[in-house]
Amino acid sequence: MRIAVAKEVDAAEPRVALTPDAVKKLAGLGGEIVVETGAGLRAGATDEAYKETGATIVGSRAEALKDADVLLAVRRPQPGGLDGLKSGAVVLAVMDPYGKADEIGALAKSGAALFAMELMPRITRAQVMDVLSSQANLAGYRAVIDAAAEFGRAFPQMMTAAGTVPPAKAFVMGAGVAGLQAIATARRLGAQVSATDVRPAAKEQVASLGAKFVAVEDDEFRQAETAGGYAKEMSAEYKKKQAELVASHISKQDIVITTALIPGRPAPRLVTTEMVKSMKPGSVVVDLAVERGGNVEGAKPDEVVEVAGVKIVGHVNWAGRLAASSSALYAKNLSAFLETMIDKETKSLKVNWDDELVKATALTRDGAVIHPILKPADAPA
Amino acid sequence: MRIAVAKEVDAAEPRVALTPDAVKKLAGLGGEIVVETGAGLRAGATDEAYKETGATIVGSRAEALKDADVLLAVRRPQPGGLDGLKSGAVVLAVMDPYGKADEIGALAKSGAALFAMELMPRITRAQVMDVLSSQANLAGYRAVIDAAAEFGRAFPQMMTAAGTVPPAKAFVMGAGVAGLQAIATARRLGAQVSATDVRPAAKEQVASLGAKFVAVEDDEFRQAETAGGYAKEMSAEYKKKQAELVASHISKQDIVITTALIPGRPAPRLVTTEMVKSMKPGSVVVDLAVERGGNVEGAKPDEVVEVAGVKIVGHVNWAGRLAASSSALYAKNLSAFLETMIDKETKSLKVNWDDELVKATALTRDGAVIHPILKPADAPA
Repeated sequence: MRIAVAKEVDAAEPRVALTPDAVKKLAGLGGEIVVETGAGLRAGATDEAYKETGATIVGSRAEALKDADVLLAVRRPQPGGLDGLKSGAVVLAVMDPYGKADEIGALAKSGAALFAMELMPRITRAQVMDVLSSQANLAGYRAVIDAAAEFGRAFPQMMTAAGTVPPAKAFVMGAGVAGLQAIATARRLGAQVSATDVRPAAKEQVASLGAKFVAVEDDEFRQAETAGGYAKEMSAEYKKKQAELVASHISKQDIVITTALIPGRPAPRLVTTEMVKSMKPGSVVVDLAVERGGNVEGAKPDEVVEVAGVKIVGHVNWAGRLAASSSALYAKNLSAFLETMIDKETKSLKVNWDDELVKATALTRDGAVIHPILKPADAPA
Repeated sequence: MRIAVAKEVDAAEPRVALTPDAVKKLAGLGGEIVVETGAGLRAGATDEAYKETGATIVGSRAEALKDADVLLAVRRPQPGGLDGLKSGAVVLAVMDPYGKADEIGALAKSGAALFAMELMPRITRAQVMDVLSSQANLAGYRAVIDAAAEFGRAFPQMMTAAGTVPPAKAFVMGAGVAGLQAIATARRLGAQVSATDVRPAAKEQVASLGAKFVAVEDDEFRQAETAGGYAKEMSAEYKKKQAELVASHISKQDIVITTALIPGRPAPRLVTTEMVKSMKPGSVVVDLAVERGGNVEGAKPDEVVEVAGVKIVGHVNWAGRLAASSSALYAKNLSAFLETMIDKETKSLKVNWDDELVKATALTRDGAVIHPILKPADAPA
């Protein structure tokens, strides 16, 4: 069972799909791992490190893919990017499938079975394979580091002989995996942290990290708060009151970090230019969703924009800005999923097409596109 | 009593000598504060903010300095940079006087009394005026933020569903004000922190911040440890053993931060290229002393150099990278010193030339250079 890892083709992608630690694990399961030279370099993994854990280094992508049963990748391969794989090979990657039926249809023709890691069901058994969580966690950490690097003040309160430096006020919008890690990191650094989320039930998690939950806490909120973890649509009246509260809160913040993503849709707009302008000069707004259209008006992918003295930080690929850590976790996610496709006795590939994880993530099989999100059902009439 | 604040001439200097908060204080002491437009912008202080606390904004440096009794600056003014001041005016700045007798001699001719803030004695009364400490403290914080921004891994240990991200190992060399703040900040961020210092007595301070002190703890060390806070010259044999221990320790670190400065001399070399190469690819070395020749072999001012996959970060003006906080503390340092030169009854300038703080810091008076460090005594024969 030959497992291939190639250098990511997109220059904006410093991560690698398999790290030396994970090589060891897959070799133990019977894998023969072939890595294109330099594939891990930007993630701190040298060819030597791969060799030490049992991989073979080859000089080109073509050599890595030749006769491989499995290709592990970070991003969806480009057209022709599967050439050389065995027919029926398994490809695991973040496939970014929404609206990409044509691209995926073209890749399907290779005969490979493409699995979209980001469609992994959020069930207990699959937590270890959840790339969205593993990468969002690091993105949340990195958002705070980048905010601190752009901010002209210190985060912690500092008592000095010359007087006190006040703590930074940081507000995190969206208390999912990235938001919670951003809260935790900003707290670590000594900021005064507050957060909000459309799910009133998030209040408890936010509070457990020592941050203040910002919400209009009326009867409607209290009912929704105890109704469970999932988002409940709040009334229009409530939303209006909450929006006013948030706008007024933002005007007093030094740091705002937005983390709202909706799978397959543009990111929701949370911060308007007017709100940005209400902040003090020198404040910093970090938009984790800029790659998906942005939560912040005026944010630009891969730029730090200045509006009325406020910096809007719009890096893309936040997890990639911590390529060593994010690759290590991503590799664990992929190897855990791949392990479910390996027959322990014959040490060969054996996909169970009835497994719910396989069903949820498989985009293509035997030359055809098979996933419902790629079917023309929701194409324009 | 007219007090002038001008835009710093050096483009590499984002700090400002007086912030709006400090304007309020000096106005209360009878000062009439005149600020050149835009002087505080890069430190987050707008013209409006200065006006609100009682300053007058003028359009140019010449207007700000015209007939002023006092000039507050971050860096030593350039030749001709005192034109317009009243004769006998007081100028407070970081004068960088060592080996600059000619430059300071030229400025002396203006008749102004130049005071070098960095020569402030380190006595209790003058702590509030200690610019070296206030700026070093923020530099130490910033060193860790920049290290975290360059590092491809997370600082804190993270327990995730996909596995554990190990904590970063950070080593701080030099446990002065900057080093202690670097230790505290790296600890806040969750790193495993160790530190060293030529003063064995620093062990207790390092330990009190939760970091491990790295030293050969033999009899000589233990005697020196209890001998008080000042550096005691250790034996050649001890130094050799200690250097070996440090070299071996560095090879296991992810982050090394060096903070060793000696006033008026080039920074001591602490980290060789060999030591840098002994570290894992992806590690980060931060040299706080790069502006003074550097503690790290290969460090370059204002560059991030890569050696064998290890990044050497050599920003200059570390405190300036946090211009809002550092300006606020610097302004407090300066106003506290200036306050000692103001006669509370007449609300006018009255320098007490017998005051030990004045004696220690005054470089020029009545057209002449008066400070011993600028006398030709130690000029080459």
